[in-house]
Amino acid sequence: KINGERLWDSLMEMAKIGPGVAGGNNRQTLTDADAEGRALFARWCEEAGLTMGVDRMGTMFARREGTEPDLPPVYVGSHLDTQPTGGKYDGVLGVLGGLEIIRTLNDLGIRTRHPIVVVNWTNEEGTRFAPAMLASGVFAGVHDLEWAYDRVDAEGKRFGDELERIGWKGDEPVGGRPMKAFFELHIEQGPILEAEGKDIGVVTHGQGLSWTEVTVTGKEAHTGSTPMPMRRNAGLGMARILELVDEIAWSHKPHAVGAAGHIDVYPNSRNVIPGKAVFTVDFRSPELEVIEDMERRLREGAKKICDEMGLEVAFEKVGGFDPVKFDEGCVAAVRRAAERLGYSHRDIISGAGHDACWINRVAPTAMVMCPCVDGLSHNEAEEIYPEWAEKGANVLFHAVVETAEI
Amino acid sequence: KINGERLWDSLMEMAKIGPGVAGGNNRQTLTDADAEGRALFARWCEEAGLTMGVDRMGTMFARREGTEPDLPPVYVGSHLDTQPTGGKYDGVLGVLGGLEIIRTLNDLGIRTRHPIVVVNWTNEEGTRFAPAMLASGVFAGVHDLEWAYDRVDAEGKRFGDELERIGWKGDEPVGGRPMKAFFELHIEQGPILEAEGKDIGVVTHGQGLSWTEVTVTGKEAHTGSTPMPMRRNAGLGMARILELVDEIAWSHKPHAVGAAGHIDVYPNSRNVIPGKAVFTVDFRSPELEVIEDMERRLREGAKKICDEMGLEVAFEKVGGFDPVKFDEGCVAAVRRAAERLGYSHRDIISGAGHDACWINRVAPTAMVMCPCVDGLSHNEAEEIYPEWAEKGANVLFHAVVETAEI
Ligand SMILES: NC(=O)NCCC(=O)O
Ligand SMILES: NC(=O)NCCC(=O)O
Repeated sequence: KINGERLWDSLMEMAKIGPGVAGGNNRQTLTDADAEGRALFARWCEEAGLTMGVDRMGTMFARREGTEPDLPPVYVGSHLDTQPTGGKYDGVLGVLGGLEIIRTLNDLGIRTRHPIVVVNWTNEEGTRFAPAMLASGVFAGVHDLEWAYDRVDAEGKRFGDELERIGWKGDEPVGGRPMKAFFELHIEQGPILEAEGKDIGVVTHGQGLSWTEVTVTGKEAHTGSTPMPMRRNAGLGMARILELVDEIAWSHKPHAVGAAGHIDVYPNSRNVIPGKAVFTVDFRSPELEVIEDMERRLREGAKKICDEMGLEVAFEKVGGFDPVKFDEGCVAAVRRAAERLGYSHRDIISGAGHDACWINRVAPTAMVMCPCVDGLSHNEAEEIYPEWAEKGANVLFHAVVETAEI
Repeated sequence: KINGERLWDSLMEMAKIGPGVAGGNNRQTLTDADAEGRALFARWCEEAGLTMGVDRMGTMFARREGTEPDLPPVYVGSHLDTQPTGGKYDGVLGVLGGLEIIRTLNDLGIRTRHPIVVVNWTNEEGTRFAPAMLASGVFAGVHDLEWAYDRVDAEGKRFGDELERIGWKGDEPVGGRPMKAFFELHIEQGPILEAEGKDIGVVTHGQGLSWTEVTVTGKEAHTGSTPMPMRRNAGLGMARILELVDEIAWSHKPHAVGAAGHIDVYPNSRNVIPGKAVFTVDFRSPELEVIEDMERRLREGAKKICDEMGLEVAFEKVGGFDPVKFDEGCVAAVRRAAERLGYSHRDIISGAGHDACWINRVAPTAMVMCPCVDGLSHNEAEEIYPEWAEKGANVLFHAVVETAEI
């Protein structure tokens, strides 16, 4: 078993870097805080005797040698970047849980046959640079490296430049590493495990996602002197589309979800009728056909709304992945580990996207989930109990070590 | 008559400072561009033999002595600050039209009995620092000076600090200047004069305004893993309130208007359900009871919407003024001037707020309006023809000189 106290201490130590405003974290990708978090993780890895490799996307790979160094390593990890108002566990638990496995193996003096690599994937959250899970997407061959470098944040800064600026653009090619398997431990970010009193979620599938950036164009005009019939209010068009998004999501009960988290109007002045509104619609479902249906209805419905209001509308798909089915062998290893440890568990579908969803394309992959309080995540108030983290990391430990063979 | 070509040249010269991105201007109040615009105006005033005074709100008063210096001056002017994506004439025409009067009087060697003062009021637009017409409001005793200094922009910068930073915090007390009258020339910013082919609008009234900042609070949560029934989506609540605002404005046909130009959601991340939405509702009408009715229905309706969605809502009135009736004597002077010059004209109600609306409280005041193309303003594409500007300035000239007595 892993050392739960040590794991918790490390979580709390990491949470001091890039503090939020309400007890959580703002350690967005490729910021100075991200660099500081990476440096701390690198130091801990060195202290645990690991060898660090960094690829051109800035992803960190900390390797513990196996007794048979030529065997493909077992990978374990997640991400250290956070939302702008994010929690202390989303992603971090998976990386530091991986590190805790190494520390435990060191304590016990155990050598595995396969090497073990603890990973910190760059830009999982996708807030600063869309899409989410960017580095794991490049690693899995879904995105092109140069395309990833050209992603820009709200201030127009390029991903590639910012990666260089914080000093974490590595030399290694992205992808192509031999991998026996990849395991990711993550908080559920939803309410199911806590509600059912389960210790562990054995993640069999991940639901699919579609991000559509919608741009509504009207005409900037004076809010006071422009008569109502002459207005082409892009903000009002957006409001109607936001209601449509909600309607569409509810129409596919019980699983589909939809909302817009990103909303900007221009020029954003109290006495100017918005001439432009840009917002990103996030639709998800475990079924591909449902996602496709929602996308289609969004485009058709928004077009109709805008036509009637004399507005123009354009759509760009800025992120997305199909529903994922994780590797049966790896999933079974997770389930076995939970059984062996005597933890209550259930199979679960991940509601969020994870690096594991991309890595599943290039290596056998599975995920371990632990509950989180009130199912709350992407909120500084995100919370878990130390024993939940400990149980999750124990399952991860057993699944990884079994796969890496003693 | 004034020199239309010289007036136009000055308008074009000023428009070079703080250029926009689409042919208009971004010369927002208390920016470096504002300082540059002020310096140019000050130089022109000096060249025209005027004496500059600056008050503690940064308002510029350029005085041409009368033959009887102890008589209260006639004031003329408007504002040089613009919207973030503003036009070249909104405000600027009134200030440079005032300067053109002085230049014409100089050309003709005419001395008036009363002094004439050309004014550039600070922060008319109210985009960077709400409310609009801030300096004229302090001048008229509506706002307190210290309160005005404490207004903050979106980055948290204080009005008072920024005024000092750009070097235009003057020594003079704000208000209390003896004023025979105040005249403001402005583009209509609406479609009526152009549609009816009138040269001049004789502004008899200004419609009233109410700015309510609405804050909707829900709960930040993950867009993927939070089931629909558990969501408290502040962005969706906002969307419903924006539709309500539109409904309320249409219900008071034909004059009332309503929209939200300022909209911000937090944390504004694609995969976070907005936990907070802040937006400003702008309602206007020539009738006070209508404004009050709209405010009341907004508060009641928004409360109902939010209650049903498990959201909280708070309201803050961040700007407003009652409908204005301009001084009959000054209005008659404007009408007489248009008659004398043989220009077509009609009485008109100003749809926008103007510094004249506040100054009317402390001195006899009236406004002259000229048409603008398609009624478009608060848009970089705002346009007027040189002859419209010229006719407007001629009416201003005659009204001012008649009031200042030769
Ligand atoms: N786990 C997580 O929050 N990932 C971010 C990508 C997503 O929006 O699902
Ligand atoms: N004239 C003008 O655009 N003033 C700004 C204040 C308002 O919103 O009416």
